[in-house]
Amino acid sequence: MISVLSGGVGAARLLRALSAEIAPQDINAIVNVGDDLVLHGLTICPDLDTITYTLAGLNNETLGWGLNGESWRVMDELETLGGASWFRLGDRDLATHLYRSQRLLEGATKTDVTRELCERHGVQVRVLPATNDDVATIFETERGRLSFQDYFVRLRHDVKVESISIQGASTATVTKEVLDALHESSRIIIAPSNPLISIDPILQLGEIKDILRERRRDVIAISPIIDGAALKGPADRLMRELGYEATCVGVADFYEGLIATFVIDERDAALAASISSNDVDVRVTTTIMQDPLDAQRLARAVLA
Amino acid sequence: MISVLSGGVGAARLLRALSAEIAPQDINAIVNVGDDLVLHGLTICPDLDTITYTLAGLNNETLGWGLNGESWRVMDELETLGGASWFRLGDRDLATHLYRSQRLLEGATKTDVTRELCERHGVQVRVLPATNDDVATIFETERGRLSFQDYFVRLRHDVKVESISIQGASTATVTKEVLDALHESSRIIIAPSNPLISIDPILQLGEIKDILRERRRDVIAISPIIDGAALKGPADRLMRELGYEATCVGVADFYEGLIATFVIDERDAALAASISSNDVDVRVTTTIMQDPLDAQRLARAVLA
Repeated sequence: MISVLSGGVGAARLLRALSAEIAPQDINAIVNVGDDLVLHGLTICPDLDTITYTLAGLNNETLGWGLNGESWRVMDELETLGGASWFRLGDRDLATHLYRSQRLLEGATKTDVTRELCERHGVQVRVLPATNDDVATIFETERGRLSFQDYFVRLRHDVKVESISIQGASTATVTKEVLDALHESSRIIIAPSNPLISIDPILQLGEIKDILRERRRDVIAISPIIDGAALKGPADRLMRELGYEATCVGVADFYEGLIATFVIDERDAALAASISSNDVDVRVTTTIMQDPLDAQRLARAVLA
Repeated sequence: MISVLSGGVGAARLLRALSAEIAPQDINAIVNVGDDLVLHGLTICPDLDTITYTLAGLNNETLGWGLNGESWRVMDELETLGGASWFRLGDRDLATHLYRSQRLLEGATKTDVTRELCERHGVQVRVLPATNDDVATIFETERGRLSFQDYFVRLRHDVKVESISIQGASTATVTKEVLDALHESSRIIIAPSNPLISIDPILQLGEIKDILRERRRDVIAISPIIDGAALKGPADRLMRELGYEATCVGVADFYEGLIATFVIDERDAALAASISSNDVDVRVTTTIMQDPLDAQRLARAVLA
């Protein structure tokens, strides 16, 4: 059994590739919920949904987010009404949020709802929200305090960030399912997701960091920064703004003490030496997962 | 200026006919919110929406509820997910509920949201929720306690009712807009809506009954029961189950002390005498509004 600390798209691709290599039932995706939001009264969990949709083969490859075969009837109408339509919710996708919101109103947890949706979509990987409690990634920026989606979607992360905090993390409880998964896993993988806003909201919860420190020998991280840039999103810019080197070395520094193996891209091979000095075993391979065969290669390297 | 105490479909038709006779800006629709519900996290106000959609010419004549040109993408998907899809919410209609729910989260009142939606749809009648507070029509039935929509939609009102209560009515505040409308109206009309579940949730609020008693000479009700039956819905059955005569006479009894004029259908002309004995002036006309010309005739009779 393995566990994968997961953000959205990058983690979803890795999980899909891993589940072609080992039994999906033996894979636990421990997923960030710091991006979750309540909008229009609906509870929306972007990373959980991206992973579920991708593992179900329902993800929209053209858009890079959301569901395939999507339509926009509700959003178009909401726009006509002058409503908040900057966070695009497709008609199919909305059904997920309606389902989740109603089940939460009925007393179900995010863990329950995620399991139900996975069952419905035939997803066998165990997709687990890191916590059932409310946590929210908050940005202090040059334009004031911003919620995750205000920063990420509404302002397209085009604003200088001064600090990031994970509201609620210190009091949130890591679920029993996540603790069991971590304890029973022979390997814990940190997906090539944004360290600061996808992985850190998981690391800051309860005993997660302590578990990783204890299990350091079994923890492997994959750098989401290649040749000084993130494949997608603002990871490089954020690393710089928050005082980290915007390279795979900076990522290794961020995970210092938590990992024993670090996977970097071939293009960064020259940097391997400076990472190794930190008592971390560096593996070099292709880490870009655009091509399914490359994703497979990465999955095999991680499992090796 | 006139005010119309309003439920859903019947009231909407009357309001449409009235606004062809007098300036729509001079008409206040004071609307029942006892049917309102929170489903999937969305705040849904069926009577307010029926009236807004009808006055905007957007109502679905075929279904008898909801919007025209409607599609069902979200509901179909929700059904696939195994979600609660018994309360059918069309894609266009959902945009209304998303808009309202988000505005309420932002601190707007139902009165604010209704005004915004009416402006957006070009509705000039002043559509006013009777209160901004939460009230809920609750049914004690042979199958236990039921919410309005459980009784009305899910069980298709096919269950014996023992009593009805309007939760929250005694502490809810009638809005200033509604009080002003009632005080400034030369005539107060009780629409041909269900007395027990559309009008009573308005009457039970704060000072509404006192105002009607004081203004009795100016209050006109239209019977929703014709020849012993309701045109739509369970009004006749409910009247019987709760000990009222299921005729226009029973409706007049229900409104005793609040009205001075009562409009009944031609088919009930023979019953006029038994009503008049209660110090109520009875007018006989067509009260069925299926045909626009009949609706016009009713509107003129009410305004005469």
